[in-house]
Amino acid sequence: MSTKRLQIAAAGLGRMGKRHALNFLSRTPRAELVAAFSPDPVELQWGKQHLEPYGVTLYDDYDKMISQDGLEAVVIGTATSVHADEAIKAMGKNLHVLCEKPLSTDIEVCKQVVEAARKRPHLKVMCGFSRRFDESYRDAHQKYEQGLIGRPSIFRSQTCDKHDPSGFFVEYAAWSGGVFVDMSVHDIDLTLWFFGDEIIPKSISAHGITAVQPDLKRYNDYDNAVGIVEFHNGKIAYYYCSRMMAHGQEDVTEIIGTEGKLSVNSNPQTNLVNLYHSGGITREVPKDYYGRFEMAFVRESNEFTAACLDDTPLPLKLSNAVKAVQLGAWLQEALVTGRQIHFDEIGRRVERSHL
Amino acid sequence: MSTKRLQIAAAGLGRMGKRHALNFLSRTPRAELVAAFSPDPVELQWGKQHLEPYGVTLYDDYDKMISQDGLEAVVIGTATSVHADEAIKAMGKNLHVLCEKPLSTDIEVCKQVVEAARKRPHLKVMCGFSRRFDESYRDAHQKYEQGLIGRPSIFRSQTCDKHDPSGFFVEYAAWSGGVFVDMSVHDIDLTLWFFGDEIIPKSISAHGITAVQPDLKRYNDYDNAVGIVEFHNGKIAYYYCSRMMAHGQEDVTEIIGTEGKLSVNSNPQTNLVNLYHSGGITREVPKDYYGRFEMAFVRESNEFTAACLDDTPLPLKLSNAVKAVQLGAWLQEALVTGRQIHFDEIGRRVERSHL
Amino acid sequence: MSTKRLQIAAAGLGRMGKRHALNFLSRTPRAELVAAFSPDPVELQWGKQHLEPYGVTLYDDYDKMISQDGLEAVVIGTATSVHADEAIKAMGKNLHVLCEKPLSTDIEVCKQVVEAARKRPHLKVMCGFSRRFDESYRDAHQKYEQGLIGRPSIFRSQTCDKHDPSGFFVEYAAWSGGVFVDMSVHDIDLTLWFFGDEIIPKSISAHGITAVQPDLKRYNDYDNAVGIVEFHNGKIAYYYCSRMMAHGQEDVTEIIGTEGKLSVNSNPQTNLVNLYHSGGITREVPKDYYGRFEMAFVRESNEFTAACLDDTPLPLKLSNAVKAVQLGAWLQEALVTGRQIHFDEIGRRVERSHL
Amino acid sequence: MSTKRLQIAAAGLGRMGKRHALNFLSRTPRAELVAAFSPDPVELQWGKQHLEPYGVTLYDDYDKMISQDGLEAVVIGTATSVHADEAIKAMGKNLHVLCEKPLSTDIEVCKQVVEAARKRPHLKVMCGFSRRFDESYRDAHQKYEQGLIGRPSIFRSQTCDKHDPSGFFVEYAAWSGGVFVDMSVHDIDLTLWFFGDEIIPKSISAHGITAVQPDLKRYNDYDNAVGIVEFHNGKIAYYYCSRMMAHGQEDVTEIIGTEGKLSVNSNPQTNLVNLYHSGGITREVPKDYYGRFEMAFVRESNEFTAACLDDTPLPLKLSNAVKAVQLGAWLQEALVTGRQIHFDEIGRRVERSHL
Repeated sequence: MSTKRLQIAAAGLGRMGKRHALNFLSRTPRAELVAAFSPDPVELQWGKQHLEPYGVTLYDDYDKMISQDGLEAVVIGTATSVHADEAIKAMGKNLHVLCEKPLSTDIEVCKQVVEAARKRPHLKVMCGFSRRFDESYRDAHQKYEQGLIGRPSIFRSQTCDKHDPSGFFVEYAAWSGGVFVDMSVHDIDLTLWFFGDEIIPKSISAHGITAVQPDLKRYNDYDNAVGIVEFHNGKIAYYYCSRMMAHGQEDVTEIIGTEGKLSVNSNPQTNLVNLYHSGGITREVPKDYYGRFEMAFVRESNEFTAACLDDTPLPLKLSNAVKAVQLGAWLQEALVTGRQIHFDEIGRRVERSHL
Repeated sequence: MSTKRLQIAAAGLGRMGKRHALNFLSRTPRAELVAAFSPDPVELQWGKQHLEPYGVTLYDDYDKMISQDGLEAVVIGTATSVHADEAIKAMGKNLHVLCEKPLSTDIEVCKQVVEAARKRPHLKVMCGFSRRFDESYRDAHQKYEQGLIGRPSIFRSQTCDKHDPSGFFVEYAAWSGGVFVDMSVHDIDLTLWFFGDEIIPKSISAHGITAVQPDLKRYNDYDNAVGIVEFHNGKIAYYYCSRMMAHGQEDVTEIIGTEGKLSVNSNPQTNLVNLYHSGGITREVPKDYYGRFEMAFVRESNEFTAACLDDTPLPLKLSNAVKAVQLGAWLQEALVTGRQIHFDEIGRRVERSHL
Repeated sequence: MSTKRLQIAAAGLGRMGKRHALNFLSRTPRAELVAAFSPDPVELQWGKQHLEPYGVTLYDDYDKMISQDGLEAVVIGTATSVHADEAIKAMGKNLHVLCEKPLSTDIEVCKQVVEAARKRPHLKVMCGFSRRFDESYRDAHQKYEQGLIGRPSIFRSQTCDKHDPSGFFVEYAAWSGGVFVDMSVHDIDLTLWFFGDEIIPKSISAHGITAVQPDLKRYNDYDNAVGIVEFHNGKIAYYYCSRMMAHGQEDVTEIIGTEGKLSVNSNPQTNLVNLYHSGGITREVPKDYYGRFEMAFVRESNEFTAACLDDTPLPLKLSNAVKAVQLGAWLQEALVTGRQIHFDEIGRRVERSHL
Repeated sequence: MSTKRLQIAAAGLGRMGKRHALNFLSRTPRAELVAAFSPDPVELQWGKQHLEPYGVTLYDDYDKMISQDGLEAVVIGTATSVHADEAIKAMGKNLHVLCEKPLSTDIEVCKQVVEAARKRPHLKVMCGFSRRFDESYRDAHQKYEQGLIGRPSIFRSQTCDKHDPSGFFVEYAAWSGGVFVDMSVHDIDLTLWFFGDEIIPKSISAHGITAVQPDLKRYNDYDNAVGIVEFHNGKIAYYYCSRMMAHGQEDVTEIIGTEGKLSVNSNPQTNLVNLYHSGGITREVPKDYYGRFEMAFVRESNEFTAACLDDTPLPLKLSNAVKAVQLGAWLQEALVTGRQIHFDEIGRRVERSHL
């Protein structure tokens, strides 16, 4: 194992960008965060306090940052709209790329990133689906591969956020791609992991409501949605996404096979504490996604770094990221149009009116 | 409270019929099982051993049984195909009726039973949806009525049976009405309880597979199915039914509101025992529906009896039984045809092709 | 199986007496409650309302009741102080006896009951240790007998009541025999069940506090106590009893063996409902002993009845009831004196001062 | 916040020593592991592979290591027998010290370390009781400080290891100080945290068995032991320690107050996965102490580092480490002698023979 440390830069110092920067700064032993970029003065000010003192050079120009001497990799945690462009530019500078999900909410743009990566096979380009790095999902997948549940047939997965009454997510909906692209894409990615990335959808249905934020309708979006994807190989995945949870983050997955079932997080909990009181027994729940998956992000940084330094395979294919967004977009379409979508056995979309 | 005991007869001594008979015989203090009927000599033989010694008169002719002097009520646990006919005949004899679900798998036939009951308002006629009598569902409903979860918006419910490799349920599918009518009807009934029986569906989707019993396709049925019902008042119910569970019966319900969530049975368990062993910590799960709901059936017998004797309202409306079967039948149609079904705001079915 | 019903009378219509009476009246199909006794006019008034209308003859004189023609058995749920006397009198009338625990808080008196029963081997005489009839404890014991935990070595058991701020239990302490006799006697009985009733104590220690009810000290009693019994065969049982729980009844047992562990009720719960709210996830806990063990009492009534009618063995030996009280009394002595108690290998008490 | 990194050396590269070294090497951003010592060639060989490449200087002489220029702190993870000596020597070199527990199994030696530290108040000297750094215990303590359980009265805590059939712990018993000193010292330390370090014992009892490793008797030790410490302020702590668990590590703590209870780890689990199979539902349990507390050790490294660099108070007092060992030693004495130990109200030991 080389003792050289991966020279990496962080693009974006917003909510997730900060976390990536800090994880590479101090929780990824084999990496060295050498640069960070943000177009936002407030975020740069944060960088001056928390990154600069440790030798991280700050930039307000992405292009300049990726031209820094000796740079080997970049972690992209900026707004979704610039993910693809920044990823492609970084590859142009011969840099490995870890890009926060999604590559884009536009499938064609996603495909451009994949294409760019295909041309530079020596580069490690990964779209960060954090659940793949969570130790519970890893354990479940390992048990699945041991055959403990027989042939997997039904996949149930939900991404449910604690309700944020600020209404932040209404404006966010304008460019998020919709709940199935923004939230369920994690569940869809897991589906590809457990069902195999070669699966071909047969039909898709979805329904949604706006229970707490009616203004979402302006953007054709919903705060609660349920969708079903039936696959040609006799499997079904169904998803629930919600921004309405009173209790906290609740991301649950069940993989149901012919001989057993695996569940992840069917008993949400922040930690191992229970409070027994006159009203019963209470345990708390993580407040947000990062409360549930913090260590998965740390593991993601470390495994990406190892793959770059040791030239070993990444744990997930970039093309899956496109497929996950595509399925999310179809679910969103089924949701918005109120129509079932159908596909033939090689995955071409078909109309059912003539059937 | 009267000390008179309700004179009741049991029709059918098959799997569920036996249970009803025994519950009225010895676990319903205010009732007295005085007669029982079965067309099946084997079942009658069982009755000779287990009922006759306690003063229960046995019949191989339903009409004769319901003509027995002094009879006040009948519990119907025969095959579904004769439920409606027997119920209507019993009402003709001025008997209260507790009928195992469903009244019929045919909506029109269901409606005839309701119509017959409407004409005899002094009779108590109930279709037994056992979960309404389960103490956990009762507690959840009470908490819901206290407003603990705000406005209920999403209803998730599943009925999942332990896999029976004998293939029994293949032949059963010929006349069961399909999985959504046979299994999910319980979940749909609960939906009516929590969302209100006046709710009007807006659109319905469903998808299914045959993972363990491909022969089901002969009867247009499935061993695993997922369906979504969206209602006009901004609520969604989604269902999963399966006959494939390796571990046992797993019937789970979640009612998700704007300010909280209630779950019933998110941690399935037979009892309060855990075994700690070298492979971890294991608890067992009820093997079947009766293992989970036995005490609910006992309570059902007792509450039905009390309503008959004291002339108090039944805990559920007969018309709900029709509505539940209707929704189940639509889900089944959506499942079999691979098409979404749509309804206008007063519940009339509409085609979407012109939209 | 005989269809004759056991003619039984209930002595005592206080809190537990009422429950026994009602269980024999209407939840024990093979028994017929024919008489009931209470010295208390208020309790008798309750009997007039709830028992007399069903053909139960009421008595304010115990001796008269047990002389009623045709009576076969009596269930004793009066004050502990008269248990033994009433049991012995009933045996004198050739009646089977189900006596609420304990037979007495005085070991010598307990022994007299056992002696009386020994002389009438045709009578079924049982002291009701309800946990032996609980389905979870039954399941745990069955798993233990299958060898699933290897050789049992450590037994941890607690009886913890919801705090009753009325101070009722202070006066009650005057004659209860102390917490180890009154509360832990259930845990000790379970110890005898799992470790075998032949076990011989080697040494006993106990410590207690009065955290919520200092007045208990007047009666040399405590509201929280912990005790250890070490046995000569290399096993240990340890107990916690408390009257201070804020959350409800919490009776937990663990049987720890060389190859595994069985736990009963390590996750206390009233039912299968969980409420998810802004403070986390909450489940409720039974409020009292009967909330946890109601069905065990029903099963106790039924099994006692069956043993009487069919002349089959009772599920627990009367002598165990004496042994359990004896161990409780020694724990209480260790608690009050602040001294460890020692026994030689045949169970004779020894002083350690000379060791 | 200074960006300077604490220059620290690791003494001992055995099982725990390696973990400390690696935690300071790569999971403690503000520290820099600059040196490591082991007297053992095999351990040094491990250091050559895993530490030297990252700039860590290796030593086979402790004295030389602590004389290295620029060194500021040392983490001691050697054999218990040299902890105290190494700690005192390090203080002599003006180094901060993080010492694995216990300082010594000999109380007098412990006190020497405390005395040495008292003379150098500018140095941070901490004995690592890892549970104090576990997020669940932290959360429980915070809830306790918010008054959520009223006045704490009963403390139950257990340290239970997965059975290691190799018999390793038999030889280990020769110098471990016995199970209460070696294992329960963590539970005792927690007691001091929750009950306050000023508490004075009133009486102590303990009982033990050798269920799986009879050879332990050679060293006056046990593989299962239960002990009770009653304190003068009306509180009780009771402990169970075992090396016999079939299922894995199970360290449980309950703090029971007048108005509620806090539990930590009453549902042991490795992660959030459940496997549903034909035998029920199974979850796994951490295999060992580090599987349960790994992140607590990382937090310990980080908090110790922060205290050294920022000259802020350590989260636990060194004197507590002595008190915890003292209580453990008394429990062990009560265990071995089969006698209760008594103390007067100012903590002086008294004989009870004259009481």
